[in-house]
Amino acid sequence: MIDQSTICAISTPPGMGAIAVIRLSGDKAIEIADKVFRSPKQGKNLKDQKANTLHFGAINDGEEILDEVVVAVFRSPHSFTGEDIVEISCHGATYIQQQILQLLIKNGARMALPGEFTQRAFLNGKMDLSQAEAVADLIASQSEAARKVALQQMRGGFSNELINLRNELLQFITLVELELDFSEEDVEFADRSQLKEIVDKISEMLKKLVNSFSLGNAIKNGIPVAIVGHTNAGKSTLLNTLLNEDRAIVSEIHGTTRDVIEDTLSIDGVMFRFIDTAGIRTTTDEIENLGIERTYSKLKNASVVLLMLDVNDPDEKIHSAIEDVKKRMDDNNQKLIVVINKIDLLDEKEVEKRFNRQEFRELTGTDTIVPISAKHNKNIEKLTTELLKTVNISALDNNEVIVTNARHYEALKNSYDAIKRVSLGLDTGISGDLLAQDIREVLHYLGEITGTISTDEVLGNIFKNFCIGK
Amino acid sequence: MIDQSTICAISTPPGMGAIAVIRLSGDKAIEIADKVFRSPKQGKNLKDQKANTLHFGAINDGEEILDEVVVAVFRSPHSFTGEDIVEISCHGATYIQQQILQLLIKNGARMALPGEFTQRAFLNGKMDLSQAEAVADLIASQSEAARKVALQQMRGGFSNELINLRNELLQFITLVELELDFSEEDVEFADRSQLKEIVDKISEMLKKLVNSFSLGNAIKNGIPVAIVGHTNAGKSTLLNTLLNEDRAIVSEIHGTTRDVIEDTLSIDGVMFRFIDTAGIRTTTDEIENLGIERTYSKLKNASVVLLMLDVNDPDEKIHSAIEDVKKRMDDNNQKLIVVINKIDLLDEKEVEKRFNRQEFRELTGTDTIVPISAKHNKNIEKLTTELLKTVNISALDNNEVIVTNARHYEALKNSYDAIKRVSLGLDTGISGDLLAQDIREVLHYLGEITGTISTDEVLGNIFKNFCIGK
Repeated sequence: MIDQSTICAISTPPGMGAIAVIRLSGDKAIEIADKVFRSPKQGKNLKDQKANTLHFGAINDGEEILDEVVVAVFRSPHSFTGEDIVEISCHGATYIQQQILQLLIKNGARMALPGEFTQRAFLNGKMDLSQAEAVADLIASQSEAARKVALQQMRGGFSNELINLRNELLQFITLVELELDFSEEDVEFADRSQLKEIVDKISEMLKKLVNSFSLGNAIKNGIPVAIVGHTNAGKSTLLNTLLNEDRAIVSEIHGTTRDVIEDTLSIDGVMFRFIDTAGIRTTTDEIENLGIERTYSKLKNASVVLLMLDVNDPDEKIHSAIEDVKKRMDDNNQKLIVVINKIDLLDEKEVEKRFNRQEFRELTGTDTIVPISAKHNKNIEKLTTELLKTVNISALDNNEVIVTNARHYEALKNSYDAIKRVSLGLDTGISGDLLAQDIREVLHYLGEITGTISTDEVLGNIFKNFCIGK
Repeated sequence: MIDQSTICAISTPPGMGAIAVIRLSGDKAIEIADKVFRSPKQGKNLKDQKANTLHFGAINDGEEILDEVVVAVFRSPHSFTGEDIVEISCHGATYIQQQILQLLIKNGARMALPGEFTQRAFLNGKMDLSQAEAVADLIASQSEAARKVALQQMRGGFSNELINLRNELLQFITLVELELDFSEEDVEFADRSQLKEIVDKISEMLKKLVNSFSLGNAIKNGIPVAIVGHTNAGKSTLLNTLLNEDRAIVSEIHGTTRDVIEDTLSIDGVMFRFIDTAGIRTTTDEIENLGIERTYSKLKNASVVLLMLDVNDPDEKIHSAIEDVKKRMDDNNQKLIVVINKIDLLDEKEVEKRFNRQEFRELTGTDTIVPISAKHNKNIEKLTTELLKTVNISALDNNEVIVTNARHYEALKNSYDAIKRVSLGLDTGISGDLLAQDIREVLHYLGEITGTISTDEVLGNIFKNFCIGK
């Protein structure tokens, strides 16, 4: 199954830097490196060097010296890929990186495909598939939460949970299949009530994992927060204040924002993706109307809706705006935060008096009302605290297993559907062979996640999204 | 003189990649690394590890694992800086790179200044100043020629030449200064005619080095080639053909190019910087006229002027265009290549007959006439051969020392002026003390290049242009 060729790639980020690292992995990694590496010590070869050692020297193309480098030697099986690896640290000119890469290819290596080093690590049993996928997530992580979840998955936290689930089921199916061998005798080796207990437990765990995806996905890609409201409520000003930069154009003219403007901000290690939308109003401006349509669609896809209102709006206007937005929020999981802007225009006590009343809360039908001044940076921290509350941070802090990968989510959902059929089968007392079939299905989907069961197509799809050099 | 703090920086190019390398150098490099590094082998510390070894483990911030890494340990004095160095290869997310860097700073390292690692290598005697400067040139090299010259300089080729020159002078001045001690006795220990020989030899070598700068500078920054000519002669088409991409907008309308368009192309490892200019014609278009003014100024600064003419132009027009351009080329070192474009419009033999005549060469007053078709990619190779001929490639191939650095050029020019005064002094028989003073000046300027003589200001200016992490 494993391609035996020796692969090479630049593993450091593209572009110029102080140094760059070119990685070579495969049976012939050390042999190829020896063809181009010259130590200042006469007669010194990499093939005679111990594993995990560093060597200064020059990369030579025939008599021509290409660069002075430091070479790291790793030996199979104690390397990232499980194969022999040579890493060449050269001077970071892109020209030099390319020349060395070409020289390695000339000497028998071939250019690595995206993710091929990690794929080999998987194929050589250095990690399971979900761990390999976490490597890519770790590299792409842009926030504390994303890094944490990916690292936990790469270190096997997620796999362990799945392997435990799978083992419990394997014991179960062994007994059920034993019954089938003795089917004429009508015996039951597997105690049905005990089995029901295990199935319920697994079902509960799968459900938790499936449900963790909405958080996991949000952590990975940033939690989408739509900022909506009437024109001129100060939505763009809020975006700029949150990002601490002039991201969106702000003016006193109604309908300044037409395009949807997106930007991300990490709050306490959790990434939020803020979406500033066109203000909602009736207008004949065609472009603005297109913008307003987009506002409604962004609202539907957001995890959190920040409804911005003007402190000068009468109660009825605030009320109807909230009703309008609530009508358009069709998902139960969406959270609404009502923001009352421009409180700097009024006396602080007056604001407190008006919005901190039970009647107002009832009127608006929401608990979360945050009076702020976007322009004067007032109460913004209160708002970010409310935003953090919408995320189940405790799950993160307790190192709970969180699903972040859409492929895992699909497989887990399929497992969950199958285990529910098992549960139903037990309730209705279906035959052992049908029961076994459903359990086999659960095992199959769980196996897909860790790569116990995999196809070239699945592997191809996973690793093509990696960066080259990993 | 050396700051004792331990410094750290990301040494790989900025951005996301498979891996990134964070470098730590100084007395406490290993101690600081040990504070944050945990090996899976219980109780294993970096401080107990041999030089030039690699170690797998995790970077920890307290109980929190930041990333899994491979750490390289180098020990003083056998390292790049001459100090203890730890290099941490982490996953290439920019977020992770930043977190690890911050953690190192929290544990007692400080952020390195640009070029500070190389500066320490210089201050610790691992390389002289001109070698240190070559490190930056090597990293910035974008062509084979630039890489070659920088590598030769980094490996000490340039310094050796200077040290030899300086040693010959040192012998000389010892004798002259001895004379001064015995000045009342009017003796001459230094044989003046022998000394004159040495001074002439040194003067000759300095002159050669000073003159090599125009080639060296061109290699480093690309040889500027101005493409000039009448409107619609096909200048932008030629640029696009040379670059093999649609870089400049091409149309049949006279005066399409107004801005000066620049792009570089490496021909046989030598970088040329092509400058497409606005066509020269009398026009009332103000923007175009500004463009034409720029054409004239680019022409003056170019090393090579490519004058593009239309094969349909009558001999007189070609003649006057060449005369016009020659008038504006005020530097003797500028080379002119006359390019006759659009030869696809005529019969090949006819073209050959017209332009390969002695009369035509005399008429145009140049040897280098290249008939081409930019549009049909005809004779372009002939043109690039002519371009290469304008460069003294043999100097490169013979590994001659070439000055590429403006600072070295200044110092060499000052040495050359001083040695000429020495030579004149010998001819006119000036007193030994004045002679000694001029020789001291030569020694001073040569010493500045290798850093035998240096000031904090000079060092600061040199290293501030380095990238961080080197």
